[in-house]
Amino acid sequence: MTAPEWSKGLEGVVATDTKISLVDGQNGRLIYRGYDAKELSLAYTFEEVCFLLWNGHLPDQNELAELSQQFRKGRELPEHTRKILKELPQDMSMMGVIRTCLSSLENTFFSWPPTIEQAVAATSTVPVIIASRMAYLAGKEPLKSDDSLDHVANYLYLIHEKQPSETQIKALTVYCILTMEHGMNASTFASRVIASTESDLISSVAGAIGAMKGPLHGGAPSEVTHMLNDIGSKERAEAWITAKLENKEKLMGFGHRVYKTTDPRSEALKEMTKQLAGENSWLDLAYHVEEIALRLLDYYKPGRRLYTNVEFYAAAILKAVELPSELFTPTFTASRMVGWTANIIEQSQDNRIFRPQSIYTGSVPENKEKPASRL
Amino acid sequence: MTAPEWSKGLEGVVATDTKISLVDGQNGRLIYRGYDAKELSLAYTFEEVCFLLWNGHLPDQNELAELSQQFRKGRELPEHTRKILKELPQDMSMMGVIRTCLSSLENTFFSWPPTIEQAVAATSTVPVIIASRMAYLAGKEPLKSDDSLDHVANYLYLIHEKQPSETQIKALTVYCILTMEHGMNASTFASRVIASTESDLISSVAGAIGAMKGPLHGGAPSEVTHMLNDIGSKERAEAWITAKLENKEKLMGFGHRVYKTTDPRSEALKEMTKQLAGENSWLDLAYHVEEIALRLLDYYKPGRRLYTNVEFYAAAILKAVELPSELFTPTFTASRMVGWTANIIEQSQDNRIFRPQSIYTGSVPENKEKPASRL
Repeated sequence: MTAPEWSKGLEGVVATDTKISLVDGQNGRLIYRGYDAKELSLAYTFEEVCFLLWNGHLPDQNELAELSQQFRKGRELPEHTRKILKELPQDMSMMGVIRTCLSSLENTFFSWPPTIEQAVAATSTVPVIIASRMAYLAGKEPLKSDDSLDHVANYLYLIHEKQPSETQIKALTVYCILTMEHGMNASTFASRVIASTESDLISSVAGAIGAMKGPLHGGAPSEVTHMLNDIGSKERAEAWITAKLENKEKLMGFGHRVYKTTDPRSEALKEMTKQLAGENSWLDLAYHVEEIALRLLDYYKPGRRLYTNVEFYAAAILKAVELPSELFTPTFTASRMVGWTANIIEQSQDNRIFRPQSIYTGSVPENKEKPASRL
Repeated sequence: MTAPEWSKGLEGVVATDTKISLVDGQNGRLIYRGYDAKELSLAYTFEEVCFLLWNGHLPDQNELAELSQQFRKGRELPEHTRKILKELPQDMSMMGVIRTCLSSLENTFFSWPPTIEQAVAATSTVPVIIASRMAYLAGKEPLKSDDSLDHVANYLYLIHEKQPSETQIKALTVYCILTMEHGMNASTFASRVIASTESDLISSVAGAIGAMKGPLHGGAPSEVTHMLNDIGSKERAEAWITAKLENKEKLMGFGHRVYKTTDPRSEALKEMTKQLAGENSWLDLAYHVEEIALRLLDYYKPGRRLYTNVEFYAAAILKAVELPSELFTPTFTASRMVGWTANIIEQSQDNRIFRPQSIYTGSVPENKEKPASRL
């Protein structure tokens, strides 16, 4: 008997069809519902792209106003979730806090089938959960949301307890739009597997957050952050990078497994950085470092075609909007909620339960001594 | 360009190899680590089979004593989880309560990599969470665990607030051993996908619970329960079943998607029922109903080979141990914790992140009107 062929991690195996996104690595582009994510991120608001991913088309003014209203409504956490936030111990990770608080939201409103209303409600709570946890850890009471602010701006407001600048809002909005959705990554896949049992949207999202928490997935641009901190100023960039490459050390923030040309997300983030030139010193530094790095990489590693990846500019944006590095994966989570919930809804609309096969490589009773009964 | 072939729900696709279990549908057997699960369930304790699934071999006396000790230690919920249990609203499902409370346990003890100690700690909490929730819903304080009782007996003690009979312990133990593990079902698969990101064991288990909650997976033997309630006594069985089959109605509890011969789990449960004959009226009734049903099915549907499935006896055992039907999926969860955690540990030992492909069936920018900029 020959064992069937299989692919570890389901690499190269198609798990589903989808109308939500296309990660086109060969051509270096990312498509959301037929639109180029790069163009969307530079020209649209966070709420508009949410609407697109959930509904399949861009909103008109009325639809957008209604969605914005729903987002604001969802910012109010139920009483018991606020109490849970206070109770969770100091040594729980922020991702664990988000997973537990979201899990605590389950009630009949979130019953199968998943809906866009449920998606908005769940998505809108995440920045509030993150900011409340930060406040409690600092021994303070969380701020109330500012209803004059949209989703991304309100997140910055809650974290920093002051009105964010237009530059900061713009930088984080572009980042959030570009990280909303990215094909069948492990967390999105997990959310679809859970949804395929006809379980509720909260259960699916809680599973996705658990997957995003893993360092092989959610990652952290901390090494890029270290590099930018270490370089510190434009003047030091050339000497710093040259020394690294002369020492044959790896330069963080360049190269990607899927995109064989430029990562479209880093391209958009660079474009935004250029638009905001002179507004924020960290964005300016990142733009400058990238120029020099690409030139020197081409010289020291000719033919390797190492392009800037999304983590490079993600690190710069975190610095620019003054988010501590432990909020990288949670902020990524806040935006990826949109992609997860869009996938959960799509899964529900043409569902079959995921139940793959496994190959048993253990022993069988014929080759095993019969166990003596103990009872 | 031809689209690659793919299989919805990954049906027939191998997702991993495993040494933990083999669901051998053709031969009607279920193997745990080389042993026949049916034989294990009738001759071994719950803790012994836990040890086998986690370690790959049956325990000696010292190993068993140590495991039993660890199980007892894990019954003590941390203070904050007890508070959360009190806070969770009435309209949250029991599965949501288990998911949220387990999620709240995450701390540095549960850090990657997953270990057997973590598996025991997580598994031992589930009956305590279930029983505490039941107590709070009834407006009572939860009972303290009885350290003289093993895992399954203590579960019954906490729920019923009295010492369970030997017959009840035996019946529920056999059921729990047989439902510990069953190949790449949706919840076990979800737990492996989450673990593959190097996330923590609690994240993986919380995802699995979310999947188990779905009615396509965790199910509920409520229709079989209704049937047994409706039949009520041995004397009424033949007439009741005959009437159903004459009406061409479906008889619940017979037939299975995977097992083409007898479901080995129902065989073991029947054997146990036979051993306990005269001890419990619900088990006696189930045994009697099955005999008649199989005889009449063979007469009314010749050649269909409809065998008794696991839900038939599961319903009888729930009645026999006096568990309300809303505790069916939670009790299934309590035992399946063992299989999930064994799979999570195995995944960590030879890991590759799950990242399958998807086929994009939406539109592309070439065919799409360019969106007007709104910003």
